[in-house]
Amino acid sequence: MAQSLSEVRYEIALANRMLANEGVLDAFGHVSMRHPGDPSRYLLSRSRGPELVEPSDVLEFDLDSEPVVPPTARLYSERVIHGEIYKARPEVTAVCHHHSPAVLPFCITGKELKPIYHLGAVIGTKAPFWDQRDEFGDTNLLVVKPEEGRSLARALGPHWVVLMRRHGATVAGTSLRDCVFRTIYSCRNAEYQLEAERLGTIGPLSAGEAEQAGEIHQQPGPLNRAWEYWVRRVEKKGEAPPRLSTKRGAARRAGLSGRRKAAPRGAKKPSRKGSR
Amino acid sequence: MAQSLSEVRYEIALANRMLANEGVLDAFGHVSMRHPGDPSRYLLSRSRGPELVEPSDVLEFDLDSEPVVPPTARLYSERVIHGEIYKARPEVTAVCHHHSPAVLPFCITGKELKPIYHLGAVIGTKAPFWDQRDEFGDTNLLVVKPEEGRSLARALGPHWVVLMRRHGATVAGTSLRDCVFRTIYSCRNAEYQLEAERLGTIGPLSAGEAEQAGEIHQQPGPLNRAWEYWVRRVEKKGEAPPRLSTKRGAARRAGLSGRRKAAPRGAKKPSRKGSR
Amino acid sequence: MAQSLSEVRYEIALANRMLANEGVLDAFGHVSMRHPGDPSRYLLSRSRGPELVEPSDVLEFDLDSEPVVPPTARLYSERVIHGEIYKARPEVTAVCHHHSPAVLPFCITGKELKPIYHLGAVIGTKAPFWDQRDEFGDTNLLVVKPEEGRSLARALGPHWVVLMRRHGATVAGTSLRDCVFRTIYSCRNAEYQLEAERLGTIGPLSAGEAEQAGEIHQQPGPLNRAWEYWVRRVEKKGEAPPRLSTKRGAARRAGLSGRRKAAPRGAKKPSRKGSR
Amino acid sequence: MAQSLSEVRYEIALANRMLANEGVLDAFGHVSMRHPGDPSRYLLSRSRGPELVEPSDVLEFDLDSEPVVPPTARLYSERVIHGEIYKARPEVTAVCHHHSPAVLPFCITGKELKPIYHLGAVIGTKAPFWDQRDEFGDTNLLVVKPEEGRSLARALGPHWVVLMRRHGATVAGTSLRDCVFRTIYSCRNAEYQLEAERLGTIGPLSAGEAEQAGEIHQQPGPLNRAWEYWVRRVEKKGEAPPRLSTKRGAARRAGLSGRRKAAPRGAKKPSRKGSR
Repeated sequence: MAQSLSEVRYEIALANRMLANEGVLDAFGHVSMRHPGDPSRYLLSRSRGPELVEPSDVLEFDLDSEPVVPPTARLYSERVIHGEIYKARPEVTAVCHHHSPAVLPFCITGKELKPIYHLGAVIGTKAPFWDQRDEFGDTNLLVVKPEEGRSLARALGPHWVVLMRRHGATVAGTSLRDCVFRTIYSCRNAEYQLEAERLGTIGPLSAGEAEQAGEIHQQPGPLNRAWEYWVRRVEKKGEAPPRLSTKRGAARRAGLSGRRKAAPRGAKKPSRKGSR
Repeated sequence: MAQSLSEVRYEIALANRMLANEGVLDAFGHVSMRHPGDPSRYLLSRSRGPELVEPSDVLEFDLDSEPVVPPTARLYSERVIHGEIYKARPEVTAVCHHHSPAVLPFCITGKELKPIYHLGAVIGTKAPFWDQRDEFGDTNLLVVKPEEGRSLARALGPHWVVLMRRHGATVAGTSLRDCVFRTIYSCRNAEYQLEAERLGTIGPLSAGEAEQAGEIHQQPGPLNRAWEYWVRRVEKKGEAPPRLSTKRGAARRAGLSGRRKAAPRGAKKPSRKGSR
Repeated sequence: MAQSLSEVRYEIALANRMLANEGVLDAFGHVSMRHPGDPSRYLLSRSRGPELVEPSDVLEFDLDSEPVVPPTARLYSERVIHGEIYKARPEVTAVCHHHSPAVLPFCITGKELKPIYHLGAVIGTKAPFWDQRDEFGDTNLLVVKPEEGRSLARALGPHWVVLMRRHGATVAGTSLRDCVFRTIYSCRNAEYQLEAERLGTIGPLSAGEAEQAGEIHQQPGPLNRAWEYWVRRVEKKGEAPPRLSTKRGAARRAGLSGRRKAAPRGAKKPSRKGSR
Repeated sequence: MAQSLSEVRYEIALANRMLANEGVLDAFGHVSMRHPGDPSRYLLSRSRGPELVEPSDVLEFDLDSEPVVPPTARLYSERVIHGEIYKARPEVTAVCHHHSPAVLPFCITGKELKPIYHLGAVIGTKAPFWDQRDEFGDTNLLVVKPEEGRSLARALGPHWVVLMRRHGATVAGTSLRDCVFRTIYSCRNAEYQLEAERLGTIGPLSAGEAEQAGEIHQQPGPLNRAWEYWVRRVEKKGEAPPRLSTKRGAARRAGLSGRRKAAPRGAKKPSRKGSR
């Protein structure tokens, strides 16, 4: 495992804060990452506003979205979005669910979101549209039941962005950075498309352009340049997540099994730092 | 009384600042709360910009919107909005009046504001539209007379959000947190609806969805997650209200009767801290 | 003279910064005030970005917009806007010229700006539209010559806001606070009208409403509440103008004649603080 | 050479940060300047987000966009935009390439961007529209090959702003300040035009107005006033670039040949400060 779990949990907290800082997430929405050492698990914060997430908030779940260690804190009710996409798409290692203002007008009208500039090609050739009502009738629109999560994952299919009617969007990525990049630039694409729809006739990317431009951010140059930029913006505001004091203590506190075995819970009292 | 009056006044100041920080209130607008120990009274700041309100600014009023203790400071002229809604709706314990940019286009055109995404279901199934001119002819559009407040309360009826033509909106809640949540997410809904109206045909929530989604924020998870997020954003900017130094002195200074009896006014000079 | 010149110059610097902070002014635009002791003079900053103006930048001009003391610094080329309005309107004691994003779409299209909510009634019953080309043909669109300023003042007539085609707007007031209030809320009105024009049919204020609502901000309550709010927002950012160290030295440095006599220029070297 | 190379590199870093701070650049985009002492070279940062650029990041390139000193860091892949424009336009001494939200709707629809207010006259009488697909078929839309850069430079022709279909814009200037001013105010013009297109019929500048107003910012007054304003805004946020400790060491570190001779590379280890 190239990256320590401690580092992974830090990066997940950071990704949450970056997406909040760039206007994608508000009080709601979340980013997860597949466990780097065990593809049958994923890492996701306990329930709290994304810009507040700390490494010690990041917990481990199996792909049925059950916490590996019985939790002491409240969990996000929409975890199945993550678990079911990880099940359906082995190559996906990060998922973001959001209600960005940029995509909501598309979610409300059903207007097709399509790549209309080079960086918007992160959307891929198609962003499917999922209407929960088709299969489940009247709900509260949250994706809480496993079958709701599976239905969403089916709608996503082999694509990278799925719009959720009257709700928001979910974005998949092949790495945490890929997922953050796709999330931010699909939102920018949505903003520009919204304005362009009113200004005139859109000349969208051709299939060939969409394919070739879709690979730009796969190059380490652009991907890392953007990541450095978003990280520094968080840091300059003094909003970087706190570092965990020790890896062992932190893993225990957060219910994270560092060596793939659940640490005996409650064996030690959580330190004061970890419990906030 | 579960919550001390001192804490209540702090939370009212905080709610004012949170709503200013999230772009709902500017120099104008106000949030009140029903007195936790006496349903025939409510608590509201003296007249000042919401993002400047301090606990010591929060005064006590009867439901005719008369101050319990003769005031030394200028009061909001539109207090009757609060008093008349508290009279008409016993289950309402918090009220916000605002001129948010998000709702003004609806207030100006009479276009119906309707829930168009899950969190927008806080609006309820209907947001009535009140035109002061219908009953009172030409006015300065402020809601100052008791009969104007009563007319507005009648228009609100059993709903949670009422739009006021050429003026703004008023939002009711079953708790301060409920009221803040409804205010912020009804504004977000308005913003997205405005954009969506231009982009295509809106597929609104069905009645069943509106009802079910309208209960999401009644759950402690989402409600508290959002509250923590808005509070922390105020705190991170160094904008949290100052704490009162002592409860007794503060209550006296602000004309707040801690035990349901008016403290003899002027018995002691206000401390320097309280008088700013 | 109730207010010292030192205080007046501080308030002019503050008003410039407030209007920049609220998004009305950027690198360009300016606010002036009639001299409180001599109606045939007015006070305006030397040429610099409004959010950088300091009390020591504020100079004295006659109504032909000539500096009372030969200046050492570059002056705004559009001073005649101020001088000619002060000549034409004895009751006007403050003027703001701006290119706010809010009004530009109206300046470009000629669409009528009209009061569409209670606070927008600061516009008055009409905002005239001035097209420099009508009288002067092709120019660089700046208002530099006295006859251009006089033409603009004639277009303003007895009103409070005049739109300038392909350029911006100019706002008059009966006090500095009145002028700032009219400027900010006429811009807000423009923003809401722009959105409302797209959303549906505007139900504008009736003449009676416009008249009555137009007096709201003449009351000390709302006017001072808004002023306190805008000032505090500038102060909280650490952006309040510096105070002049001494009145006499400062007046001399800035070419301001404290007792209506021009101080002998260059008699003393400017202090280091005053010269920045 | 009036300006030292050290100062030039500081100003280039500053210009990058200013344009990021004013919302023109995000993780992408770049500003270059022709070498003040050798018109056959230009100066451009290594590849990183514009708001992070430091003087020590600024490298020297020949007009074929090859680095003068073999680089140790990753370079922008779109350097040919700069080199080919410097080749084609001897009077151009600064170039900015950007994807500002303001221009994207025009780049997507092909709607003509035209000067519609006095400051927007920086665009010049025409902003040509370049569609890479016309000449090169499907690409990833980046401008990487020399022939792509030459094609763009031909499209720009004698003008100052060229829109790039489904990509962004490139702006030329006769000095760094001129280029920054043209970039920011052409974006503002785009924003206002976008709004005005929806509000009514645009009354554009006449040719005579465009020509005369296009010279406003050539005057030192407006140009320097705006530059001071943008610089101070960066400085007030604590975002000004760091100063290089010593010119010699810095030039060596950055691969910049102070005296037009390449310093022997690797002769000395970069100092710790230079390597971050």
